[in-house]
Parts: sequence; C-alpha cells; structure tokens
Amino acid sequence: MTTRVVAFGGGHGLSASLRALRRCAPELDLEITAVVTVGDDGGSSGRLRAERGGLPPGDLRQALVALAGDHPATRRSAGLFQHRFTEVPGVGPGDGLAGHAVGNLVLVGLMELLGDPVAALEHAGAMLGSVGRVLPMSCQPVGIEARVRGADPDRPDDVRTLTGQHQVAVATGRVEALRLTPGEPEACPEAVEAIGAADWLIFGPGSWYTSVLPHLLVPRLADAIVSSPARRLVTLNLAAEKETLGLSVADHLAALRWYLPELKVDHVLADAKAVGDPEPVERAAESLGARLVLAPVAVTDGTPRHDPAALGAALVPVLGADR
Amino acid sequence: MTTRVVAFGGGHGLSASLRALRRCAPELDLEITAVVTVGDDGGSSGRLRAERGGLPPGDLRQALVALAGDHPATRRSAGLFQHRFTEVPGVGPGDGLAGHAVGNLVLVGLMELLGDPVAALEHAGAMLGSVGRVLPMSCQPVGIEARVRGADPDRPDDVRTLTGQHQVAVATGRVEALRLTPGEPEACPEAVEAIGAADWLIFGPGSWYTSVLPHLLVPRLADAIVSSPARRLVTLNLAAEKETLGLSVADHLAALRWYLPELKVDHVLADAKAVGDPEPVERAAESLGARLVLAPVAVTDGTPRHDPAALGAALVPVLGADR
Repeated sequence: MTTRVVAFGGGHGLSASLRALRRCAPELDLEITAVVTVGDDGGSSGRLRAERGGLPPGDLRQALVALAGDHPATRRSAGLFQHRFTEVPGVGPGDGLAGHAVGNLVLVGLMELLGDPVAALEHAGAMLGSVGRVLPMSCQPVGIEARVRGADPDRPDDVRTLTGQHQVAVATGRVEALRLTPGEPEACPEAVEAIGAADWLIFGPGSWYTSVLPHLLVPRLADAIVSSPARRLVTLNLAAEKETLGLSVADHLAALRWYLPELKVDHVLADAKAVGDPEPVERAAESLGARLVLAPVAVTDGTPRHDPAALGAALVPVLGADR
Repeated sequence: MTTRVVAFGGGHGLSASLRALRRCAPELDLEITAVVTVGDDGGSSGRLRAERGGLPPGDLRQALVALAGDHPATRRSAGLFQHRFTEVPGVGPGDGLAGHAVGNLVLVGLMELLGDPVAALEHAGAMLGSVGRVLPMSCQPVGIEARVRGADPDRPDDVRTLTGQHQVAVATGRVEALRLTPGEPEACPEAVEAIGAADWLIFGPGSWYTSVLPHLLVPRLADAIVSSPARRLVTLNLAAEKETLGLSVADHLAALRWYLPELKVDHVLADAKAVGDPEPVERAAESLGARLVLAPVAVTDGTPRHDPAALGAALVPVLGADR
C-alpha cells in the first residue's frame, strides 16, 4: 500500500531529506511531496525575485533536482539545472547571467509562461523525470524577519530586527522572534491538500528559522499540519548553523512547539554523536509527544551533513512501522 | 525505406523548411537533419556570444523548436524554449535576463556543461522530444563580412564592407562579395557525415547571404555537398529580404552557383505568384542542372511566408519521386 510522505523544508536540508526518502521509496512504496519555503532573498534567487517578481526559484530547484529520475538523460538535465553561469571578463558580478543556475532561469521562465507556480513545478518535474512532487508553501513570495539578540557580537544584549532570509540565515546571535511578511501568507492549496492526505509529515533537517519553521507560520498550512491524520517525524540537524548558534538540539524542538503549540510529533530522529547526552533531547521530544530515535545518519568524513543512504536506512523502520 | 534529408539554413527560413519536412516525414519515412549557420551576432544570441563565447544559440533553438515533438509536454517545453524574458522596470534593456529566450540560456548552459555543441544539441533535442536532429555547420562561431554596394542610399555607387550577420542582414544595397571569418572555418564532423549519408540536400528558404550561402563557404561542408550522392533541392524565397533587395529570384540561384560553382541542383521549388514570369528562373535553374517546380507554397494572407502545410504538400512528390 502506498505511503504518502510530505517533507517540509528548503535548501540543503530538504535536499538531504528527499534524497534519503527516495532511497527508501521502492521498499516502502512512498509517494513523496516536498513543500518548500519561498522566503529566499539572497544570491541568484534574490536577484531574480527582485528583478522579475515571482517565487525565488533556488530552493524549489534544489528539491526538484533531489527528486530527479535515475535515467542518464534526466541525470544530465538535473546537471543542467544545477549548472551555474560563472562570471566572465567584462561583465560585472551579478550582471548578465553570472551567478544564475540554469534551473533557476528555467523555473522563472516556466512560472512566467504558465502563470502558475504549481503547473510550472509540475512541468519542471516532468523534464527531470522526477520521482516525487515539489510544491511551494505559498504561491506568493514571503519575507522573513527576525528579532535577534546579540547579532552584533560587541553588543551581546542588544536586540536587532533583521530583514530577509539571507540576513537571518547568516546572523549569529539568538533568534527571539520570527515572523513572515505578509504576516499571514496564503498557503498553496495543493500543499494543504497533500498534507491532509498524507500518512507522514517530515520536518527538517535544515536551517531551523529560515527553512523549517516558516511553514508553521503560514496559517492554513499550520492548520492542515495540526489536523492531518498523518504521523509526524522531526529530523534534527547535526550541527548548529549560524542562525541557531547557542540553540541546543533540545531547543530546536522547543522552537517548533513555540511556533505551533498544537503540534504533536510521533518520532524525533537524531544522530547519536550529534546529540551527546540524550536525556535533555529525550525530554524535549516527550514534551511534543514523541519518541527519540537515535541512528548514525551523518556522513563519515566528520562534516555535519546527513548521508542520504544512512538517513534512508534509519527512516525505513520508522516510516514502515505499523501505527 | 528511410529517406535521409539534410536541410541547410538558419532562422525563420530553416524553421519553415523543417516544419514542412516534418509534415511529410510520416508519408515519406524521412530522417531529418538540420545544419544551421552559426554567424548570428545580433540580439540575445549576439549578447551571449559576446559575453560567454561559444556558438550563438538562437538559430539552433529555432531549428530545435521546429522539430519538437507533438506530445503536450514537449509542446510546452518548446513554448518554454521560445519564451523571451521581457524588460522589467529598474533593469535596463539588454541587462540581466531581458531579451533572452529561455531556450538560448538552456543551450548556452548545456554547451558549457557538456563542452560539446553536438552533445548539447542532442540533449536539447531529447528534452523537446525532437523528430529530427540539429547540428551546427561549425562547432566554432563564425563572423560574416560583406562588401555591399549602395548600403548608404545617398551614395548608391559606394561599396562598403559590413561586418557581422546582423549588419549584413539588415543592410540594403547589393552584396558583391561575402566571406566568413575565419576564412576557412572547420566543419562540424557530424554535419559532414550526415551530408555524405543523405538522400536529399535542401537549401533555403531563408536570408540568402546570412543563412543559406554561409554553408557553401565552409570548405569541408562544400566538399561534402559536392561529393554527396544525394539529390539536391533549392527552395526559393517568396520575397526579397533587405539584404537581397535588387536581387531577382534568378539572381538567388546565380549566387549559389557563384559561391559553389561545382554545385549541381536537381530541383528548384518556387511559388508561382512570387516568381511571376517563370522563364528567367527556369533558365537559371537549368544552368544549375535543375528542373523548376512551381507550387503554391505561401500563406494565403499575402505576407511573404511559407505555409508549412502547403510547402510540405509540394515537397511530397519531389522527395518521393524515384531518381
């Protein structure tokens, strides 16, 4: 019987989650849907968003590529989507094509041509022989704002408001409040529908404030998450990113609860080495109603990256267990 | 039995020829190869060529789109290739993405990624479910230079050298000499091979000096054309373009002979209305060894464009005839 999985996130974290899921897809007969943040305002995506409006394409592209089919032709198309135009002599950085990934330009073109991000992503998925579906969390781009204590290392007690996903993601200090602009963005209807029909909802890994939590701040998405009959899994990060320096692994779970108090979680998956003493994480998991599952899910070279094969192997017994 | 057809040209003329050929492909079991000029230096192609090097993609894109498959998904991908980014407020014309067709950016990305224009075109053809193959006449971009008499209407007897396909194509006056830079560009080996294996070689319609004749100036391509066992067809234009104002229909044939004196032609296809008095055209055709075939091949709205269905219908008896 098909198990419908919805994975939330953005960027590299979601990419790792999707690569792990596709590895266990055949064994578990998974139907994968990615729901992707649309708050990016940096780099190629930020320029395209500022110049042309529409959704920032980078995180959507990463999710599509993570789900691209295994046929040599679709692998090559995935390589094309990821190909980034380098700077060339005589053209300034950020001018012309320099810095844009081809897939970002294809997605912007498709969204302009079809006038509908969901149809554009469906077509891009077909171009890549995708083994799953990619949806935006909202069909309108959003802004991300954070109140951050100690963003300036020389003034550790000052609280500053940082605007834009890029600024928030690279800030050090402690995020004390997070919000989206507009404050209550419209949810993508197809994402709401997928959440309602899901067997599993998977949060993380990823930049906690800029890729994982934003979904919980979209009212209809949050409602759908709370009321979905699906089981819920949180995959924790392996190391604190800049935006979450000073935030313990347990604090990551507390942040989920803070932004969506009604959220109940069934399983929390973490890497034993990254967790260290499991006791506070176990307690934080329990406060969400979840059981902590420890498994070796990191790459073996010591960098804080999930290994898709190891993460996939750890997901099989969790997603495959009877309720 | 499969009939292998190689069509030479660039831009709209080649596109019309390819759209006509694909219509008679099922009836005649055609295997279609397009060999495309690589001299464009205007518009999006010109900017990409100047900024990033490599082949100008626009004429290659037009040929690919003309051969795109009929499936709704490949039709949509063809629409994406043709989608041109408009100018947006705050970004100057010719800056950023404005003016670029998405397919041009895809082709440049593929050529950079794969390092081989032939492999890039093969992959792009697969993305479009192409019903034929598109090859560049040379894997290096070329320049086009023309000596033009009367380019300045106020000095009808002066001869000026115009540099660049775009300048030559829009010039009025009479082209007295045409050359490529470099003077003897390398032919694309796959194009040479296709010509040697062809049953038919088809020249025109199209901008005569900038899309049709350049192939004859590539030495190994000219050799292959002369020595190929294929039959040869010339499809004449419906109206003089700027670059060929003052050139009669018969003069078009004389120009072919001037630039490749060894060229023998079997059939010349022309629209009866466009030809007017057939006698001089018949004589010009005969001087190439060809029989003139008159057929109604123009669209019926009076504009000088070939109708792909009418041109296809006219091609069937010609290409299908026994030798």
